Amino acid sequence: MIIDVHGHYTTAPRQLSAWRQRQIASAGTPFTEELVITDDEIRETIIEGQLKLQNERGTDVALFSPTAGGMAHHYGNEETSKQWTRTVNDLIYRVTQLFPDNFIGVCQIPESPGVSPANCIPELERCAEMGFVACNLNPDPTDGYWTGPPMTDKWWFPLYEKLEELEMPAMIHVSMSCNPNFHGTGAHYLNGDQTVFMQLIQYDNIFKEFPGLRFVIPHGGGAVPYHWGRYRGICEQLNNDEDLIERLMGNIWFDTCVYHHAGVKFLIEVIGAQNVIFASEMIGAVRSRNPRDGNNYYDDTKRYVDAIKDLSDADRQTIFEGNARKVYPRLDRELKKRGK
Amino acid sequence: MIIDVHGHYTTAPRQLSAWRQRQIASAGTPFTEELVITDDEIRETIIEGQLKLQNERGTDVALFSPTAGGMAHHYGNEETSKQWTRTVNDLIYRVTQLFPDNFIGVCQIPESPGVSPANCIPELERCAEMGFVACNLNPDPTDGYWTGPPMTDKWWFPLYEKLEELEMPAMIHVSMSCNPNFHGTGAHYLNGDQTVFMQLIQYDNIFKEFPGLRFVIPHGGGAVPYHWGRYRGICEQLNNDEDLIERLMGNIWFDTCVYHHAGVKFLIEVIGAQNVIFASEMIGAVRSRNPRDGNNYYDDTKRYVDAIKDLSDADRQTIFEGNARKVYPRLDRELKKRGK
Repeated sequence: MIIDVHGHYTTAPRQLSAWRQRQIASAGTPFTEELVITDDEIRETIIEGQLKLQNERGTDVALFSPTAGGMAHHYGNEETSKQWTRTVNDLIYRVTQLFPDNFIGVCQIPESPGVSPANCIPELERCAEMGFVACNLNPDPTDGYWTGPPMTDKWWFPLYEKLEELEMPAMIHVSMSCNPNFHGTGAHYLNGDQTVFMQLIQYDNIFKEFPGLRFVIPHGGGAVPYHWGRYRGICEQLNNDEDLIERLMGNIWFDTCVYHHAGVKFLIEVIGAQNVIFASEMIGAVRSRNPRDGNNYYDDTKRYVDAIKDLSDADRQTIFEGNARKVYPRLDRELKKRGK
Repeated sequence: MIIDVHGHYTTAPRQLSAWRQRQIASAGTPFTEELVITDDEIRETIIEGQLKLQNERGTDVALFSPTAGGMAHHYGNEETSKQWTRTVNDLIYRVTQLFPDNFIGVCQIPESPGVSPANCIPELERCAEMGFVACNLNPDPTDGYWTGPPMTDKWWFPLYEKLEELEMPAMIHVSMSCNPNFHGTGAHYLNGDQTVFMQLIQYDNIFKEFPGLRFVIPHGGGAVPYHWGRYRGICEQLNNDEDLIERLMGNIWFDTCVYHHAGVKFLIEVIGAQNVIFASEMIGAVRSRNPRDGNNYYDDTKRYVDAIKDLSDADRQTIFEGNARKVYPRLDRELKKRGK
């Protein structure tokens, strides 16, 4: 079984973004409009989109969440974020109900700049009840200005407690960038990945306080594997501890959203299969085909893993399935319930 | 000959930082104190520091600049930055005069948030006259808040014209981070590298307007080589041009400040020797030894290049010397003048 832990509903019917635009434009006045999308409209976008590629590429199930760029937590206020979050999570829920074999829900949470992340707990609980198995956690709700506290600040701890209790891992995933310095998918995304990894190193070991907290850092961990010597060295220097980075990696996984074969191979060689978790974020940042690589899709990351000849069967299984079942216990239980 | 293009005077006598602290503390009142450091004090820090490691590691000459983190352009105002910049550049000049065979100057420039980079031109010219061959260019003079314009904004163009005219390349190098989200060497540095690379992709091709402008992106290009598929794909999508990224690489080089063997090998394999330029940034971000790699220094990057068995002699020469002579014409002329 091949589980893709990183999928967003980037193909959602246009009514969604139109509704969101009207919601944003309504700022300060009540906005009570319900989003109207039919089941058939959802079916069409999935069948012609992510499901088609799942079948073509030979993956089985995707963890599916609202678009990352669309979270855009900086718009409006806490209520704006709550309404938007419930609306997109409900849409994801419908996808998981219409295509239960192929999509399992991962939720957005209603973060808002300056508002305690504890405000996200009710939505997290609601989503857990609806069968969602994880959440996306935006380390920068300002969307490109990074004026909030680091992820190791106590500010975030109520959320971490709840994530532990619910056995939901968090994918650390920034949203759009409003900062003209940072291109979204080409800078802000990767900056976010390595920035948070470094915050975790600076703290010593947050997982001593939250042993059940699990972070998936997407996009192959940003620059981290490529600069593994830098991170290891800085970690040793800062904490005077040669093994801390290994202990941190007991609760951190990097996904395989690295869009060339050499990069995915490097990731697995440097970090090891036990911390690499299969994902493609398909129909995402890079939707085109690579003219220099057989005109295959850049984001067909399964090809890159398949092409690593000297990967053992056990490691391949760990990356494609084992780690996902381990990191996402709710997913594992759900799959087992279905006899998988 | 082995040229290290990335060295900072991190071992400068303590009077320097003490002077700087007093200068910052003087904010708003005249500060006329001269920095007092003797030649012997400079000699001692170099002989026991960078020169010792040059000899031990077998490199010949380093391009040497003020500490990157110390540039700290956000402090005070334009005058603060000018005074500080002249002071540290003068100190670098003295190092190059005391050790002319081993150190060639690269200057800091007096950037200041909100102030036109054209203000840096007089200092750039002064340094060129003193034999400096390049400058460090901070893409974020706010030091961690990124509220200025991207490097492709016309704002920067007067500086680019002057760099072209003087045949000085710029190393794109952020300074310290005041933002608690961004660790300096573990996040802000690498974020800066990939952020600027992505800005260049977004612009189409700034080197059409400035064909003589050359950027060295340090720390192995941040996350760029590891995510080369992502950057290539985004570049193709944004610009509808399959070859733009190659054309951009006609004016961009990545240095080898990647602190493990696998990373340096990967860099050269993915990017190719023609765009990789030897550097160590030694006595910098990671000053310790790697207990898992023969207890050698993390930042002894020459070892990593040496250990790539299948690198041709021609490529090795390109990385160690050829690219530096090509990218830094003033360096090449100076070396030739000395019969090297």
